[in-house]
Amino acid sequence: MSWIDDPAFAADKPFGPQTLPYGVVETAEGPAVAVRVGDHALPLRPIADEFTAELAELVAADSLDPLLAAGRPAWSALRARLTELVKATAAPEGAVLLPLSETVTRLPFTVGDYVDFYSSRNHAENVGRIFRPDGEAVFPNWSHLPVGYNGRSGTVIVSGTDVERPHGQRKGDDGPVFGPSVRLDIEAEIGFVCGGPVARRVSTSAAPDHVFGVVTVNDWSARDIQAWEYVPLGPHLGKSFATSIGAWITPLEAFAAARVPVPDPGHPRQDYLVEDTHWGLDINLQVFWNGTLVSKPDFAGMAFSFAQQLAHMTVNGATVRPGDLFASGTISGPEKHQRGSFLELSWGGKEKITLDDGGERTFLLDGDTIVITATAPGPDGTVIGLSEVAGTILAAGD
Amino acid sequence: MSWIDDPAFAADKPFGPQTLPYGVVETAEGPAVAVRVGDHALPLRPIADEFTAELAELVAADSLDPLLAAGRPAWSALRARLTELVKATAAPEGAVLLPLSETVTRLPFTVGDYVDFYSSRNHAENVGRIFRPDGEAVFPNWSHLPVGYNGRSGTVIVSGTDVERPHGQRKGDDGPVFGPSVRLDIEAEIGFVCGGPVARRVSTSAAPDHVFGVVTVNDWSARDIQAWEYVPLGPHLGKSFATSIGAWITPLEAFAAARVPVPDPGHPRQDYLVEDTHWGLDINLQVFWNGTLVSKPDFAGMAFSFAQQLAHMTVNGATVRPGDLFASGTISGPEKHQRGSFLELSWGGKEKITLDDGGERTFLLDGDTIVITATAPGPDGTVIGLSEVAGTILAAGD
Repeated sequence: MSWIDDPAFAADKPFGPQTLPYGVVETAEGPAVAVRVGDHALPLRPIADEFTAELAELVAADSLDPLLAAGRPAWSALRARLTELVKATAAPEGAVLLPLSETVTRLPFTVGDYVDFYSSRNHAENVGRIFRPDGEAVFPNWSHLPVGYNGRSGTVIVSGTDVERPHGQRKGDDGPVFGPSVRLDIEAEIGFVCGGPVARRVSTSAAPDHVFGVVTVNDWSARDIQAWEYVPLGPHLGKSFATSIGAWITPLEAFAAARVPVPDPGHPRQDYLVEDTHWGLDINLQVFWNGTLVSKPDFAGMAFSFAQQLAHMTVNGATVRPGDLFASGTISGPEKHQRGSFLELSWGGKEKITLDDGGERTFLLDGDTIVITATAPGPDGTVIGLSEVAGTILAAGD
Repeated sequence: MSWIDDPAFAADKPFGPQTLPYGVVETAEGPAVAVRVGDHALPLRPIADEFTAELAELVAADSLDPLLAAGRPAWSALRARLTELVKATAAPEGAVLLPLSETVTRLPFTVGDYVDFYSSRNHAENVGRIFRPDGEAVFPNWSHLPVGYNGRSGTVIVSGTDVERPHGQRKGDDGPVFGPSVRLDIEAEIGFVCGGPVARRVSTSAAPDHVFGVVTVNDWSARDIQAWEYVPLGPHLGKSFATSIGAWITPLEAFAAARVPVPDPGHPRQDYLVEDTHWGLDINLQVFWNGTLVSKPDFAGMAFSFAQQLAHMTVNGATVRPGDLFASGTISGPEKHQRGSFLELSWGGKEKITLDDGGERTFLLDGDTIVITATAPGPDGTVIGLSEVAGTILAAGD
């Protein structure tokens, strides 16, 4: 029986001892690296003496930056030691448990570059049909490479941060009009936080050593701004105002039992995209709109794994560094209830979505709150949790 | 007569006392903030006592990051004091002048987000005609907003750093093929380095307080990779391997005499893009290919000023922070000898460019060196210099 007295800290719960995600919490002594145990945060600085000198320095920091840079051997050693500590019957000296409901979480690391992919075939097909009804839905390159683009790292925010409705230009009948977006949307995604040594031309087999962990992502999107601006250089202001990530990063090691093959593309892969082991992940997402479950996207069907995405992103010689973040792209399945954006759920605003309180929606209204949660199968029948990503829409400012 | 005995440090030379650009140089005591005087670097840490306490702390740093964050009042005070010091007849105690030819320069600041615009009408028209011969060359949005996209900040490199030819997928007759790029190109651009307080919804009139200075940029581009990957989300690996910037940042204040109106778009502007004063800049670029002058792009014709670009980039609520970098997009004029990329100069590889040594080129060969320089009119008939951006192509690695 663990010293941690929290019913949510159990092997059959998403944040039991099989998960142990990392974050940064506010404490009386300033920001502190912490691990999530059930519905509590365990700051690590007060118990730094329980670790080796190398690990103690990493966990005593005020962000995850040093830990991200430390690399896989340190990550594994820390997780092993933490597992011992949280399963012990007696608390380490100085340990403090903070209830999550009373704890402020911070963006846990300095975001380097943020790249967003587009690796759900159903999403690409749906968006293509909606945005380009007279053109080809999915372009010929799509199945050969993980199409993606650079996002804005300076506006990556932590779960719980409000999102102000963005202003921008959109197409009007007589030229563009300017004002608050009228088609504000979400994108339910899974993100990967990079760490380890700076590297280039990372192979699919080396990719896991450059990925510290996994987070939920909501890549807020203003569809009206995006539709007007995106040719020919891709999305910019329609996406750059905010990208939310979960406050707790679940270590990649926790997903050992969740690994699945990526779907066969129906043609040979370029060598650098071939995996010698499966790095698709069986992650199930849930999207809640003001508390109503409106979608259940399934990550397992994505066309490219994170290992393939990272191999692609660096095959041209570009470096990957600790703190780089990349996301899967919107996760949509073949069924309507699996669509990961409201653009798709409402089919371009044509079909209403009814919430439990009777309210009807196509796109987001001011005051709406979106929560995305996710879980994956863990070892021995357990469940691995990804911490929720939540955000509430504020009215556009002056 | 100044104590600085360097014929290049004269009012009729680009790097005379009217320019005073900032960089970071290697010294025996580690990296040091420095100012360029003629063909010398003047490290500022050894003469930090010559400044107020606030400025002394900024100039004693090992990068420009603290200075960028300090904001316009500090920038103006530092420039005023430096102007006194470099014009004085006696050297400040401890001053050391390092010949540039023997001095290693570093990337002078931590790059936040890097955004690249597309604000040359001639470039957009030329690329549109080459990439989409059967479609519209310039899309309807182009004249209404400064089209742009996010680049990769982690691969911004300082002038003089070699560039390895990137690998990637390109279109083949029977599906994509993979290998070193065969259409490696440049983009001659002007970049703007942001500083001052973190801000959002920056107006065109406030924009200059968020721009520390101006640099030359070469946004290396693999056209074959780009052409295959860029639909529908824009350029990614075709650009992300390297972006070179000049080692010395010329302060915005130096460009007071270079300001010109941007061309009339022929239709009303959205309010947030209207300037109450002109921030177009009369900058003349020169592109040298292995020493041969192959192009003379003219920045004054760009369709949007940096103030309009920054206003656009933040109008949706996105923040701008110290270290953010944005660039103009390739600068091409109406004449062939003003084209700022080899894609355009060779018209998609169809027309050879002859160098002074008799060599012929369309795109870059291994071993080729590109140098881009730029100047602008200064006060009282002087010339303001932008430091060169240089790079040499290495063969693709294994």
